Amino acid sequence: MRLLKTICLLLMPVLLQAQHPLTFFTRTEAAAVKKDINRYPLLTRSYNEIKSEVDLWLGKDVDVPFPKDPAGGYTHDKHKSNYMLMFNSGVLYNITGDSKYALLVKQMFLKYAVLNPTLKNHPQATSSSPGRIFWQALNDANWLVYAGMAYDLIYNSLTAAERKTIEDGAFKPEVDFITKDLEPWFNLIHNHAVWACAGVGIVGIATNNKEYVDMALYGSKKDGKTGFIALMDGLFAPDGYYAEGPYYVRYAILPYYLFASSLNNARPQLKIFEHRNRILQKALMAGLQQTNLDGTFFALNDALKEKDYTTNELVTAISVATNVYGKDNGLLFVAKKQDRVLLNKGGVTIAAEIASGKNLPAYYPYHSVEYTDGAKGNEGGASFLRNGTGKDLTTLISKYTSHGLSHGHYDKLNYNLYDKGNEILTDYGAVRFIGVEQKYGGRYLPETKGYAQQTIAHNTLVVDEKSHYDGKESVAENFHAEKLFSSITNPSVQVVAAKEENAYQGVKMQRAVYLLQIPGGKKLMVDVFNANSKGDHQYDLPFHFDGTLINTSFKYDSFTDKLEPLGKKNGYQYLWKEAEGTVKDTVAQLTFLNDRTYYTISSLVQDKASLFLARKGANDPNFNLRHEPAFIIRKKGENQSFVSVLEIHGKFDPINEFSSNAYPSVQQMKLIQNDDQFSIVEITIAGKKLLIAQNNNDFNNKSIHTAGGVSWTGPFATWYDGKKIN
Amino acid sequence: MRLLKTICLLLMPVLLQAQHPLTFFTRTEAAAVKKDINRYPLLTRSYNEIKSEVDLWLGKDVDVPFPKDPAGGYTHDKHKSNYMLMFNSGVLYNITGDSKYALLVKQMFLKYAVLNPTLKNHPQATSSSPGRIFWQALNDANWLVYAGMAYDLIYNSLTAAERKTIEDGAFKPEVDFITKDLEPWFNLIHNHAVWACAGVGIVGIATNNKEYVDMALYGSKKDGKTGFIALMDGLFAPDGYYAEGPYYVRYAILPYYLFASSLNNARPQLKIFEHRNRILQKALMAGLQQTNLDGTFFALNDALKEKDYTTNELVTAISVATNVYGKDNGLLFVAKKQDRVLLNKGGVTIAAEIASGKNLPAYYPYHSVEYTDGAKGNEGGASFLRNGTGKDLTTLISKYTSHGLSHGHYDKLNYNLYDKGNEILTDYGAVRFIGVEQKYGGRYLPETKGYAQQTIAHNTLVVDEKSHYDGKESVAENFHAEKLFSSITNPSVQVVAAKEENAYQGVKMQRAVYLLQIPGGKKLMVDVFNANSKGDHQYDLPFHFDGTLINTSFKYDSFTDKLEPLGKKNGYQYLWKEAEGTVKDTVAQLTFLNDRTYYTISSLVQDKASLFLARKGANDPNFNLRHEPAFIIRKKGENQSFVSVLEIHGKFDPINEFSSNAYPSVQQMKLIQNDDQFSIVEITIAGKKLLIAQNNNDFNNKSIHTAGGVSWTGPFATWYDGKKIN
Repeated sequence: MRLLKTICLLLMPVLLQAQHPLTFFTRTEAAAVKKDINRYPLLTRSYNEIKSEVDLWLGKDVDVPFPKDPAGGYTHDKHKSNYMLMFNSGVLYNITGDSKYALLVKQMFLKYAVLNPTLKNHPQATSSSPGRIFWQALNDANWLVYAGMAYDLIYNSLTAAERKTIEDGAFKPEVDFITKDLEPWFNLIHNHAVWACAGVGIVGIATNNKEYVDMALYGSKKDGKTGFIALMDGLFAPDGYYAEGPYYVRYAILPYYLFASSLNNARPQLKIFEHRNRILQKALMAGLQQTNLDGTFFALNDALKEKDYTTNELVTAISVATNVYGKDNGLLFVAKKQDRVLLNKGGVTIAAEIASGKNLPAYYPYHSVEYTDGAKGNEGGASFLRNGTGKDLTTLISKYTSHGLSHGHYDKLNYNLYDKGNEILTDYGAVRFIGVEQKYGGRYLPETKGYAQQTIAHNTLVVDEKSHYDGKESVAENFHAEKLFSSITNPSVQVVAAKEENAYQGVKMQRAVYLLQIPGGKKLMVDVFNANSKGDHQYDLPFHFDGTLINTSFKYDSFTDKLEPLGKKNGYQYLWKEAEGTVKDTVAQLTFLNDRTYYTISSLVQDKASLFLARKGANDPNFNLRHEPAFIIRKKGENQSFVSVLEIHGKFDPINEFSSNAYPSVQQMKLIQNDDQFSIVEITIAGKKLLIAQNNNDFNNKSIHTAGGVSWTGPFATWYDGKKIN
Repeated sequence: MRLLKTICLLLMPVLLQAQHPLTFFTRTEAAAVKKDINRYPLLTRSYNEIKSEVDLWLGKDVDVPFPKDPAGGYTHDKHKSNYMLMFNSGVLYNITGDSKYALLVKQMFLKYAVLNPTLKNHPQATSSSPGRIFWQALNDANWLVYAGMAYDLIYNSLTAAERKTIEDGAFKPEVDFITKDLEPWFNLIHNHAVWACAGVGIVGIATNNKEYVDMALYGSKKDGKTGFIALMDGLFAPDGYYAEGPYYVRYAILPYYLFASSLNNARPQLKIFEHRNRILQKALMAGLQQTNLDGTFFALNDALKEKDYTTNELVTAISVATNVYGKDNGLLFVAKKQDRVLLNKGGVTIAAEIASGKNLPAYYPYHSVEYTDGAKGNEGGASFLRNGTGKDLTTLISKYTSHGLSHGHYDKLNYNLYDKGNEILTDYGAVRFIGVEQKYGGRYLPETKGYAQQTIAHNTLVVDEKSHYDGKESVAENFHAEKLFSSITNPSVQVVAAKEENAYQGVKMQRAVYLLQIPGGKKLMVDVFNANSKGDHQYDLPFHFDGTLINTSFKYDSFTDKLEPLGKKNGYQYLWKEAEGTVKDTVAQLTFLNDRTYYTISSLVQDKASLFLARKGANDPNFNLRHEPAFIIRKKGENQSFVSVLEIHGKFDPINEFSSNAYPSVQQMKLIQNDDQFSIVEITIAGKKLLIAQNNNDFNNKSIHTAGGVSWTGPFATWYDGKKIN
């Protein structure tokens, strides 16, 4: 019996070989990739890139240093490159069959098996979820995802003794730390937990540890209230919008896809990719719709503007998605920009399609689209109104979501405008220099909370110089804005209206934004913002524009020899007050130049308003802020309305020294009616009248209305030069 | 007899047909172009572009409005597009033979023949050289160049009576105005006069008017002291450097080449393209060497940074140059970027070469090059030190020219650094929004003289907060800096040293700048700037950097809640003082990030220095300035030296969240010796020593020197890690 047991143990590696790898790909899949590796240039290139990186380390003693530095520092970057090296070497082992690749991974794992049991919390840890190998647990979870796959990939090459050493030494301390010491964090509904669950789950599959996989799927208590399935159910709206916004779906999509792909092999009965009507497919497609022409993710919530869809996370998701959901022309377009594929079946499919040259669109297939927010889709949402094709695309984003967890901004009813690939009305994003050690270890800088998250940093209304919900996340998390009506089917007349009644006590805010292309081709955005209150307030509506100020219709005093901040708190202290003016009963206009196009903001002033020109950069001793301009309209009173037009016009050609249509066409604006029932706006554009009538309390598509001399059906109507255009 | 005369007059058009066209091309050349028009895609495209623009106007009544608006306004832009339309239509007439094109031109000319005799000075004219059709005479000269060619191109289609009407009505008032009313301006040695002479000369050829041609060639007095030949002799140095710098040679090159090309047909005996050892060829090649990787002209003197070599002026020069001087791979590279050729023989050659796909380099063939300044080449000059290939090109510009006429800046011994296509140490250029009517009619804005031309706007020494020559052009024009020694043959060790002793009374300035690539590949610039005086002075050395401040080695107080200007005059009033620090006996370091690369300025402080962080934008009520940062080192005393290193290092990868080598390698700096004879600098870089020894009074290549423990031959020597590297 004892002998049999020994024989069994000795045979184990052979017997178990059929079960590994299971995470990144299977043995069959690896063989299929190998067959095509020299067939399609993109696949060959991706393979050679990985191979040349890994080959540099063959036969060398790779450093596994004792953790010391924050992000951007040596030990941080070393451990980060180590897990990628282990993973890539594991992939190469399976494709080439060459044991030197397995050996490299094993030697590194044996070092981690020595190191990991000795680790306490990282010396640079500052957050409530400290890491051990890294300064934050999130990075340790990253390590588990890739190290887990690497281990699975070389599993067959190891002896039982080696496996035990690695599983007990390298993995167990990390998994225990994350699932026990950091249990509350592991059980969050948050992008960190997606990584944590994926890490623990992939290690579970790699080490044949059912307990790990179950905890990963259903939470440390295995009750399903937390864990991967709950994260698939809780962080996405039914249509795929991610609670934290586009920048973070970019980050979370990788563990979602990699763990799902592993589960697809290890627990096929889960049908994980079909879960919730293919929520992972919807998530990817929604993420890509939330990018600019240049592939950068829209800067909603905390976001770095450099991040685009060529990141490793999207390369991974697109290769896996192509494998499980099939070919998609939009994904192929992105994959071509990425110029890199995973060495899996999806990667082969993409490389083959790109080599054939067929089906490749010239631009990503952007279209107007609206997403709900919240797991049930009942917590507001965001609309992306689009007009134009190719390079001439205009995108108007209207955001009326819930807060968006810890990276959310106080930006209810905010909008942003992109045109021709440029950001025109901007969101600051986050204040952070990722990976730059000198800048606070690459972490979020204090100006993120202090400025970028505050309401004044957005293109939405600030009441009494305070942020929405008084800038309190715990309060903000309880509320969301609400869509009133929208229409996105006619590209020439698109609209979305939403309301927010909780951000400021006693103030009801309602905003409708229109993206119009009027007969003749001119594009404009019209913004009807009403704030109603029984008490007196100060209302500030900022326009954060990107461009050079060309002209204003109003006079201002500019603070040319002394600058002071615009205010003292809630983000105002970060704005220099550069100029100030007062206007009465007029249309205040400001023209700016962005790249080669002119843009003019025209805003109706009934009675009186103060106008400010401001610039970011005050109270910024470490020079963390970009010195970008803003135009702010201030009104005081009980109820106030802000009716504004942003007109896209003309062309600046510095090469040939021509400027055309540098002046705005908007000549007059009138608020013909504005009450609980209706807002009726008349805008005179180059002598012709644009009339917009909208309902403020009846949003039924079939209701018939008569007001201001016009009749219409449904929540809004638009006329140009006397003809109805919607 | 009378009958014979009448017959002769009637026959005249026929008899004269052989003599026209002569300006843009000849009848034979037109036939050759026609033959190939559908043969080479670039030629076909260029032809179709012109044709589709002109065809829009066929059969229409083109407006020739009474002049009213400045640049950017309707009448300005209309007259500008009119002369191009007449010219293009004239070209099409000769290529297609279709009389409708001639008719369009004739009808427009007949309107100008009515308009021009009625014109007085333009209502918007402000300069000493007012225009009539346009707000400045320069634009009227542009009109003459193109209208002259247009007339020549349709000459054969006109009756004698029509010719008389046009020559007397459209041309004579303009030529008289320019050569008589504006005689001093016409006779200038300045880019305006190049246009004026070309205009009058081309009209002369087109109208068979020898008097006009002679005035154009030899000045209104026909004594050769002014006029086109004198302008070829006077505005270029013998090696082709243009007195006003690269931005303006870009502008002047067109009338030079078009008039020369006309003369080549009309007065071949002049051999104009061979004049002064092919000075026009040298001028073009020198202009192109003074561009950045992206084709924009280096922003020396008054310059707009958007201007690149795809402008119409360069398209014209390159097509003509290819015709007269033959094919050149560099010119072909630029022509491909321009994606447009003239419809002349040179254009055919270029289109044929590009169609063949051979000989096209991947980058413009930039190389290290030095130019002298002044007609005799004895008024200083400028050096362009280059290292690296392709996208990794680094260019260090050292400017020690004469003043550069009215668009010159007070920038003696200034340098600028470009790297990887980006401007790293910047020149502001000019403050101007060309073609933007709202910005002062597109003219130079007051901030050009007030800030951009002042010394503080440059990377060179400012003594006592005054500009060079006290900011007086009349004084500056009498002096120039002088090169002491240089070496550009070894790409790893390049240097240029120059002195300036007249910019500040009683202060002698000498600066040597080195562009080094040390063993291992690191690139750095070393700057040794000595100022010697018998009296006490305040010395400010600014570094205008383009990038985000990442870190400083020194402490500073930052003016976070109140900003005031750095000074009161000479450009200082346009700089906000953002921070100030004081250091002693140290190496002051400042690291910034530009695009994806880190740059660190390290500057030796012996004894004491004040350090300032400043930003453009103060005293700028119309928001004309870009808000760019500067780092300023201030020292006080009699003699002062500034030894600085700019190190190019590391990589910032926000997509993959890696930063490498974000910290500088320069650790220590020592000035081992610094006197009348020698400057010996020791720089410790990552533990190894870089030693630079230079002579300050003996620049003989054969002199042997011993100082500071080392011996060398010639004006300088460099050692790294104990080994000589130059």
